[in-house]
Amino acid sequence: MSDRSSRPALSRRSFLAAAGLAGTAALGVRQAAATEATTPDPDIVDIPDWTRHLGVGVNANPYGVPSPFEKDVVRREVTWLTASSESSVSFTPIYALDGTITPNGLCFVRHHGGEAEIDPARHRLMIHGLVDKPRVFTMDDIRRMPGRVNRAYFLECAANSGMEWRGAQLNGCQYTHGMIHNVIYTGVPLRTLLEAAGVQATAKWILAEGADASVMTRSIPLEKALDDCLVAFAMNGEALRPEQGYPVRLVVPGWEGNMWIKWLRRLEVGDQPWEQREETSKYTDLLADGRSRRFTFVMDAKSVITSPSPQAPLRHQGPNVLTGIAWSGRGAITRVDVSLDGGRNWRTARLEGHAPAKSMARFYVDFDWAGEELLVQSRAMDDTGYVQPTKQELRAVRGVNSIYHNNGIQTWLVRSNGEAENVEVS
Amino acid sequence: MSDRSSRPALSRRSFLAAAGLAGTAALGVRQAAATEATTPDPDIVDIPDWTRHLGVGVNANPYGVPSPFEKDVVRREVTWLTASSESSVSFTPIYALDGTITPNGLCFVRHHGGEAEIDPARHRLMIHGLVDKPRVFTMDDIRRMPGRVNRAYFLECAANSGMEWRGAQLNGCQYTHGMIHNVIYTGVPLRTLLEAAGVQATAKWILAEGADASVMTRSIPLEKALDDCLVAFAMNGEALRPEQGYPVRLVVPGWEGNMWIKWLRRLEVGDQPWEQREETSKYTDLLADGRSRRFTFVMDAKSVITSPSPQAPLRHQGPNVLTGIAWSGRGAITRVDVSLDGGRNWRTARLEGHAPAKSMARFYVDFDWAGEELLVQSRAMDDTGYVQPTKQELRAVRGVNSIYHNNGIQTWLVRSNGEAENVEVS
Repeated sequence: MSDRSSRPALSRRSFLAAAGLAGTAALGVRQAAATEATTPDPDIVDIPDWTRHLGVGVNANPYGVPSPFEKDVVRREVTWLTASSESSVSFTPIYALDGTITPNGLCFVRHHGGEAEIDPARHRLMIHGLVDKPRVFTMDDIRRMPGRVNRAYFLECAANSGMEWRGAQLNGCQYTHGMIHNVIYTGVPLRTLLEAAGVQATAKWILAEGADASVMTRSIPLEKALDDCLVAFAMNGEALRPEQGYPVRLVVPGWEGNMWIKWLRRLEVGDQPWEQREETSKYTDLLADGRSRRFTFVMDAKSVITSPSPQAPLRHQGPNVLTGIAWSGRGAITRVDVSLDGGRNWRTARLEGHAPAKSMARFYVDFDWAGEELLVQSRAMDDTGYVQPTKQELRAVRGVNSIYHNNGIQTWLVRSNGEAENVEVS
Repeated sequence: MSDRSSRPALSRRSFLAAAGLAGTAALGVRQAAATEATTPDPDIVDIPDWTRHLGVGVNANPYGVPSPFEKDVVRREVTWLTASSESSVSFTPIYALDGTITPNGLCFVRHHGGEAEIDPARHRLMIHGLVDKPRVFTMDDIRRMPGRVNRAYFLECAANSGMEWRGAQLNGCQYTHGMIHNVIYTGVPLRTLLEAAGVQATAKWILAEGADASVMTRSIPLEKALDDCLVAFAMNGEALRPEQGYPVRLVVPGWEGNMWIKWLRRLEVGDQPWEQREETSKYTDLLADGRSRRFTFVMDAKSVITSPSPQAPLRHQGPNVLTGIAWSGRGAITRVDVSLDGGRNWRTARLEGHAPAKSMARFYVDFDWAGEELLVQSRAMDDTGYVQPTKQELRAVRGVNSIYHNNGIQTWLVRSNGEAENVEVS
């Protein structure tokens, strides 16, 4: 029978007594627990009684922030990669995240001319070119449009994992794979705006232009624009963040992130692509023979193990959870296989959580670890039947000149002390 | 044919020229747009050229924050409601949110003894009482458990809308309905922890205890504990926020928020409820005859229109979007009807976005407004067949003494100037 006389505010001593534990007996329980530790755990009798401290009130932070103990879970910039911080990238700390949604404050940032600072009341979105009625929309106009939707989509920079083309380079999935986020967008179909302007019969492409200092522009096939693109004003329930295009961005599901024009201010309708810098000298894929692939818009199926990984070592022998993320620009992730031995043997991971087409999926493998070295890999499959290739398979076709569209299988070596590093297996 | 020679960096003049607009012609386009404005719009020629300003770099905020233009979208405390801020509530600004997920920084906060500040490395969760093997788990132990899941659930305080029992009181859905949030949790089934301890045959209830200064405790039927409760350590992809129970909270899907013990430190297994303060003097429902309903755990189906609402007036005649949220602790929302005339006529709203059982749903009604007065109401239905009642129907059964479990239909009066207020209709 339970101890119904126990007071709610147990002292440390009664806390342990209630559990039938005291002093060194505590260690016994640690050993009897479901999991075994490789290193001694902190002495259980040092548990603070947190209840002795009256904490801050309910509105200490009207807009809340993470615990100070999570201060290292932040976006990180690689300063040597680009000329300036205004044209650089900061990476999502995917090694520390879980589930399927990326918190807005941790979504990676890629700018080409810094972050535009826009007053939504004074912002306009123009549609012109091969249309019957050129239009200029206010933000209110967009919010009042019929057919508002909520859709989860991953956004991956085409250059994500780009440093890995020539071999294992960066020691942490935040850097190798952190140019990705997964967000639920609220907005209206781009089709609705285009139909309001009346797209003419000869139209085949649109140009989307941002209001940032780089005046980012990309050509997008009209067929895609009329299919599933969104003009989005909210992410994960609240207004877009400034660094993600506030007050309005284009959502181009499954396609490379550079096309998701932030601070969207202009849509021109035309009959050919515009051959802008970002689709000629950039965001093309240089092959071994000097030719370039271009208009390689779709992000193919890809995955990465986020834990264990160089930033998330194993800390205990016994039961452990391996986890990672997978995504495909062509559809839904249907399966992820995981290898612990560098690709010799594979087991099918458990996909967990809501992951519709062109959205990020979360996978788990519960496994026991006895301290042996591991070579962990994940291999994603999507509902088109596509299977994520090895890096070697990609290089055989595309060489190693490319920056973009590396979706090869990633390998982490986990050493017997639990530390992990970025390696290649042949 | 499109203007392929147009430079990316359009000046304001060329921006307007490209759209076939200049000077006063701009107003003509506003009138030709899909929507009509009731008030003059800002002069279109005042659009700033945002591109002239080089913005901040990619890592100005390693953990990002909202735009300064969204500074009013925050949790708000009602200081007169309770004795101190440490035992108060701050409300979710649902009037300004969209989609189905509540951003972590805006999830309402209800404390009874302030916010516990916990070092996860030194925190422990104990299970004892009617178990074969009392257990003490570290956070690492919990993270290494098999069967980790990701699940979206709403959390509603039982007192949400409590001020409305006696009539329309508070002018804004943030205050009338803002003790709700909807979050995707990552954690392990509570069942897994209980099974690790070995629940004895005579067990019928568990007591969950928090590590805050109020030592919050609630009795929970064992059947529920073994069904769908979670021990969660992450929310919306990242670690729990401090005010939401960092590093670990109980998730009790569909049941009143007070039971979702934050800063979870102890689970006792017993054969009867513990009759703690929060289930005797609080969180019981005082009826007209002086008797109280107790153990009224489930939050029944409910909905509210978030826009238009007192904090989100209509600003334009013509096309408009009405939106709101709906939820049920008994299952999935299957339908929401909306009335614009105080309940005489109803139309079925469009449910939009992923909304599994015991999770918040988002609904929309696209409508035209000619400036007439509206009495807007929403009525939720769930997959058990339950239909959200009127306030009058609730009062006929429960009287007006209660604080908790008011799930009656809410009415906003929208005046011809677009302003809205909280009213009752008979």
